[in-house]
Amino acid sequence: MPTGNLLYAQSGGVTAVINATAAAVLQAARARKVRVLAARNGILGALREELVDASALTAAEVKGLAHTPGGAFGSCRLKLKSLAEDRAKYERLLEVFRAHDVRWFLYNGGNDSADTALKVSQLAAEYGYPLTCVGVPKTIDNDLAVTDCSPGFGSAAKYTAVSVRECALDVAAMAETSTKVFVYEAMGRHAGWLAAAAGLAGDGRDAAPHLILFPERVFDEADFLARVDAVVKRVGHCVVVASEGIRTADGRFVAEAGGRDSFGHAQLGGVAAHLAARVKDALGHKVHWALPDYLQRSARHLASRTDVEHATAVGRAAVECALAGQNAVMPVIVRDGDAPYRWHVDIAPLSRIANHEKTMPKGFIRADGYGITAAARRYLAPLVAGEAYPPYGRDGLPDYVVPRMRTVRRKLPDWNA
Amino acid sequence: MPTGNLLYAQSGGVTAVINATAAAVLQAARARKVRVLAARNGILGALREELVDASALTAAEVKGLAHTPGGAFGSCRLKLKSLAEDRAKYERLLEVFRAHDVRWFLYNGGNDSADTALKVSQLAAEYGYPLTCVGVPKTIDNDLAVTDCSPGFGSAAKYTAVSVRECALDVAAMAETSTKVFVYEAMGRHAGWLAAAAGLAGDGRDAAPHLILFPERVFDEADFLARVDAVVKRVGHCVVVASEGIRTADGRFVAEAGGRDSFGHAQLGGVAAHLAARVKDALGHKVHWALPDYLQRSARHLASRTDVEHATAVGRAAVECALAGQNAVMPVIVRDGDAPYRWHVDIAPLSRIANHEKTMPKGFIRADGYGITAAARRYLAPLVAGEAYPPYGRDGLPDYVVPRMRTVRRKLPDWNA
Repeated sequence: MPTGNLLYAQSGGVTAVINATAAAVLQAARARKVRVLAARNGILGALREELVDASALTAAEVKGLAHTPGGAFGSCRLKLKSLAEDRAKYERLLEVFRAHDVRWFLYNGGNDSADTALKVSQLAAEYGYPLTCVGVPKTIDNDLAVTDCSPGFGSAAKYTAVSVRECALDVAAMAETSTKVFVYEAMGRHAGWLAAAAGLAGDGRDAAPHLILFPERVFDEADFLARVDAVVKRVGHCVVVASEGIRTADGRFVAEAGGRDSFGHAQLGGVAAHLAARVKDALGHKVHWALPDYLQRSARHLASRTDVEHATAVGRAAVECALAGQNAVMPVIVRDGDAPYRWHVDIAPLSRIANHEKTMPKGFIRADGYGITAAARRYLAPLVAGEAYPPYGRDGLPDYVVPRMRTVRRKLPDWNA
Repeated sequence: MPTGNLLYAQSGGVTAVINATAAAVLQAARARKVRVLAARNGILGALREELVDASALTAAEVKGLAHTPGGAFGSCRLKLKSLAEDRAKYERLLEVFRAHDVRWFLYNGGNDSADTALKVSQLAAEYGYPLTCVGVPKTIDNDLAVTDCSPGFGSAAKYTAVSVRECALDVAAMAETSTKVFVYEAMGRHAGWLAAAAGLAGDGRDAAPHLILFPERVFDEADFLARVDAVVKRVGHCVVVASEGIRTADGRFVAEAGGRDSFGHAQLGGVAAHLAARVKDALGHKVHWALPDYLQRSARHLASRTDVEHATAVGRAAVECALAGQNAVMPVIVRDGDAPYRWHVDIAPLSRIANHEKTMPKGFIRADGYGITAAARRYLAPLVAGEAYPPYGRDGLPDYVVPRMRTVRRKLPDWNA
């Protein structure tokens, strides 16, 4: 085996289980006696030469990482462009890799990160620098190609389904004299995966959520309001789950309806707030709405055990295939069966993943456009199965771990982008 | 022991554990061989003679109730006025009680319900109708007098502290290139109990939540914005927890700043959305915000074990003191020690509770107005201690139970309010 260091970095929106992947990477590398450096704030830390000695984390810190949400090493939203356009940045990366003897690069993220890892591998080949680049899947958006699902999605999906089931019981109890319509806003700018997961909260015509709004369908306000009213008349109340990404026929995001408040200040949009106001205005029903925002992707207290297992498996597999010299690849989840759920990890080329986007199958949305199908349930159910509670302290709070960061001494001059 | 039926009803905003109280009432009454009727939708069901035979619930249904959020029998927001003003309603209640041989009335709610139970007991005495009225405490607002805390609050407090700890880790990971300021909106129109509970998420100058906004303090926008900016400069990001009830110096609720959106439609307010917009406008930081709304009071999946124990104990005690003929009282939680936490149930007269409001002690808010004190931590910590997970199905969702309602045949003519 070649000597050298493995560089691990986290990218894009963090999840409840990306640190479980990080912990698996550290444990697998430790078992193989390979030193791991981690970049602070994703690829940005690599560019800035802000590296930490992740191998110096104690065993307790690594164990704690496995059940801690957020991104322990920091993540970033930074998309590198093509090799031609951003050549200086890619070359800087190679320079930093060389300076720190990085021979394996694991980038833990979504589509953009897969693209970055692929391009870095191409430039390294061009320069004859021996580097193995491996993408490690992660995103609550579940929009990564090839893999059956993305680590992070299952836990966000479980949070969504459980939260909707719970607040639906609340609304049902109060509807006679109080809130009749409740709107829950789920993340999902381009694809309605999390909104679809809310469908697991109930099944049957009168079970909540009564209406799901998908970004895959055009939002028709009049039709929506008529359906809300019909559900209220039939059931007594109506629970709506709306994707943040729904758009009207003219392509306008409903979330971007923010105007000015009564002080004259700009207001931020929000799908749930907007829909709630329309229901109140047009139908006169008392409404409430919820916007869980980052809570839905950081709720490690409600993680899916399946998701934690996926996140752990891809971390371990990433180290194995990196050390085996499998370059420009990503470990992916392959589904072998729905019920009982069976799966294994396979290795896919990054070229099949980078800049592709997995959309939700048409067959997952009910014909009327407001609910999920049996096929969607079959796909989603195993991903939210199983519990994986973090340990709690005597103070009643989860024992989340923030490891001490051991900075690696810089060897290069400052980088100015 | 006199023969007759016990009537149980749920009132006001429901909680993660009010059904645990209901289950305890049913189990205690069953042990004493007393039949329990339940009113649908609180006192409204008693007025309408919409009663169910709660004793007919199966043992499995009662057991399931104990871990199911919402209000199984339906709750209501309906405040009866004085005996003079609403005499017809109170008399109707007695008429329904007589018709169904109700000799014990347990009303499970907050201040208003304590008041209703007290007035019903007074009218019954006036008419010489043998009735024992017992209030059973419940509210996430924690504003009930006499009792050390209100069942329902501990679980909402735990939800708040855990959620803030989790999303703070998310924000910390992303702040370098993305969201720098995050605002979490906590329930609490009059008192900042839940906002205070968020303070348990971290301790120390740089730990999230960095700023808590209490309704007990006047909201000073300029001071707030300056502090947000200072925290961002010092820590790199800032997590804010805001009570929905904060007001500016002129007494105006910040939440009521809703104006018109860009379609010209009325917008609903919201403290977090408003503060986020102000931060973005005035400071230019990227912001996100969360509004958990009903999620925070229905999150049985994250209930506090202490809270579940309180909710169960007051249900059991309510039956015991009703059957012992202790009239116009409420079982309350008495704290015997902070650490280790020790408590017992005592019985207090409703007259000391009805229409009183427990405010947060001044000594619980830090001198600068933006955090909690050690005294607040000592009070709050035991209330969120311990976990009490509901059972989960193989589908990965909590096994919540919606009991079948066995309607009691009506004996009186329709009631027209």
